[in-house]
Amino acid sequence: MIKLAIVGYGNLGRGVESAVHQNPDMELVAVFTRRDPSSIKLADPSIPVLPLSSIESYADKVDVVILCGGSATDLPVMTPGLAEKFNVVDSFDNHSRIPEHIANVARAAKSGGNTAAVSCGWDPGMFSLARVYAEAALPQGQTYTFWGPGISQGHSDAIRRIEGVQDARQYTIPVEEALEQVRSGVNPQLSTRQKHLRQCWVVAKEGADLARIEREIKEMPGYFADYDTTVNFISQEELKDKHMKMRHGGFVIRSGKTAQGDSHTIEYSLKLESNPQFTSSILVACARAVVRMHRRGEVGCFTLPEIRPCDLMVQELDEIHAHFI
Amino acid sequence: MIKLAIVGYGNLGRGVESAVHQNPDMELVAVFTRRDPSSIKLADPSIPVLPLSSIESYADKVDVVILCGGSATDLPVMTPGLAEKFNVVDSFDNHSRIPEHIANVARAAKSGGNTAAVSCGWDPGMFSLARVYAEAALPQGQTYTFWGPGISQGHSDAIRRIEGVQDARQYTIPVEEALEQVRSGVNPQLSTRQKHLRQCWVVAKEGADLARIEREIKEMPGYFADYDTTVNFISQEELKDKHMKMRHGGFVIRSGKTAQGDSHTIEYSLKLESNPQFTSSILVACARAVVRMHRRGEVGCFTLPEIRPCDLMVQELDEIHAHFI
Repeated sequence: MIKLAIVGYGNLGRGVESAVHQNPDMELVAVFTRRDPSSIKLADPSIPVLPLSSIESYADKVDVVILCGGSATDLPVMTPGLAEKFNVVDSFDNHSRIPEHIANVARAAKSGGNTAAVSCGWDPGMFSLARVYAEAALPQGQTYTFWGPGISQGHSDAIRRIEGVQDARQYTIPVEEALEQVRSGVNPQLSTRQKHLRQCWVVAKEGADLARIEREIKEMPGYFADYDTTVNFISQEELKDKHMKMRHGGFVIRSGKTAQGDSHTIEYSLKLESNPQFTSSILVACARAVVRMHRRGEVGCFTLPEIRPCDLMVQELDEIHAHFI
Repeated sequence: MIKLAIVGYGNLGRGVESAVHQNPDMELVAVFTRRDPSSIKLADPSIPVLPLSSIESYADKVDVVILCGGSATDLPVMTPGLAEKFNVVDSFDNHSRIPEHIANVARAAKSGGNTAAVSCGWDPGMFSLARVYAEAALPQGQTYTFWGPGISQGHSDAIRRIEGVQDARQYTIPVEEALEQVRSGVNPQLSTRQKHLRQCWVVAKEGADLARIEREIKEMPGYFADYDTTVNFISQEELKDKHMKMRHGGFVIRSGKTAQGDSHTIEYSLKLESNPQFTSSILVACARAVVRMHRRGEVGCFTLPEIRPCDLMVQELDEIHAHFI
C-alpha cells in the first residue's frame, strides 16, 4: 500500500481524499492544514487532520505528500519546502513560472534524496503530454491549445471585484470556427479574439448601474478587452442553479505534414464535469509514479513528460501488455 | 547524430527514409533488404542498399535498426533475431500476439545487451498511450477504440481473392451514432455491427457476376458477415483516382466518473492522410528513445507506455519545460 498525506483541504484536497477510494493500492494516512484542524471534517473521521506545522513528525509514516494549495502563493513555497523531507506531488499551473518552480523543487528534492512530480493536472499535465507526443510524432506542424467550455476562476474573481457586482461566473469558450479551421489542417494564424469567447453571468447588487458594470467588464485589460465578451445579468438563484459546477476542458490539436507532404491531424480533448475532481484523480496517479520512481532511486523533480506512463497505472506490466497495447 | 539502418523497403521503409529528414539528430546509414539490392532505388543514391545477410558487418556502424517488415511473418522472426546484435524498433501490430512478441524480443535483447521498442505505430502505439493515460486518469470508466475512416489492407486483400474481382479497396468507418453515444458518457454496450461500417469499392473483371461478388463479400465470415457492408462497383480508373491514398485514423474515447460522481470524457483522435508515413514518423521518434535508453543502460524490450515521453523528442528538457508543459 502507498501511504498518502494531503496538504490543504480545499476543492483539490477533498478531491484527492475521495480519489484514493478509486485506487486500491493507496491509503490516506493524514490531512495537514494551516487552518484550525478542528474546523475540518473529513468524509472518513478516522483519518487525522493535523496542523501543517506538525508534518515533519510524519516523515516515516508517509510515502508521498500531495500538495493541494494554490499556484499563486502556496506551491512556490510549499513544494520546495516539503520536497526536502518528503516525496511530493503538486499541480502547479502558472505556466510562465514552471521552469523556475522545477528548478526550486529539484534542488530541494535532490538535497533530501526525494522524488517530486510537479504540474500534474490536465493543463499543465495531460495537455502537456498531448503537446509532447504530437510534436514527437509530427515534427513539422503547428500545435494549438484551446480551453473550455469551462469556468475560469481568475476571470470570475475579476468580475466580482467590480463595484456593484454581488456574484459572477465566467466561461471561457473556444470559438467553433477556429477549432474547425485548425482541424482542417490549414494551420491558421489566430488572434486571441479568434480563439476564445468570454461569457459572463453576473448577479448585480440592487440598484447597481448595469450598463457601467457591463462596460467595465468588457474593457478590462488583460482579462476581457482582447476578447469578444458577452455579459448576462441573472439572479443569484439562477447562478446557483445553473453555474455552480466547475466544468472545464479543452482541446490540443496539432496538424502537420510528414516528409512526403501528407497531412495529419492529432487531437486530444477533455470534457470535465468537475475540474478539481479530475485534477485530483491525476494527482493520485502521479503520486503512485513518484513512489515507484523513488523506490528505484530516481531522485529529483519531474513533470509528466519525464514519467513513464506505465508508472501511473495500478495495473502490472503483464496486464498492460495484454490489454492496453 | 543517431545512426539508423532500415530493414525492409516497402511503404514503411520508404516512410522512414523520408522521415529522417524531419529529424535533425538522425542519419540514415544503410538500407537492408531480402530482395536484390540493385532493384531498389533510394531517394538519396549515396546511401548503400545491402543484402540483409550482410547486416552483422554493420554492428559497429549503426545505433539502431528500424524493422519495416510485416507483422504476420517477418517481425516475429526478424525482431528477436536482430535484437541479439542491434538496438531495434518495430511496429508489430498483431494485438493478440503482442505479449508473446515482447517476451521473445526481450529475451534476445537482454542476451545481447541491447534495447528494443516494439509495437511503435499508432495502434498499437499512440492509441496504446491514449488507453493507458485515460485509464490512469479515470480509474473507473470504460474505454472504446474506433478505427477509421480508413483503408484496411487485410479486408481489401480478402475482396481481391474473390473470383471475378480485379481490384478493390475497403474502408472501415466508425458509426457516427456510436461515437456520439460514447462521447455522451452513457457507456453503451456496442456490438461489432454497431461500432463500424465496411464500405467496399470493387473493380470487377469483364463479364463477372456482380450479384455473386457482392453476396460473397457481404457473407464472408470474420471479415464482413458481422458488419453492415456496402459494395460499390467502379472502374479501375475511378479506383486509382479516388481510393489510392492510404488514409486512416480513429478514436480512443474513455468516459468515466470520479469518486464524487462527476462525469468526464477523454478523447484522442487521429486523422491521417497516409497510414505508413505517420507510422514511419513514430518509428523514428521511438528509435531516438531506444538509443537514449541504451546509452543509460536500459536493456530489454519496451513498448511506448514504458518509454518516457521526453525521450521521443529532439528538444532538450529545458526547452520542453519552457514550451511544452
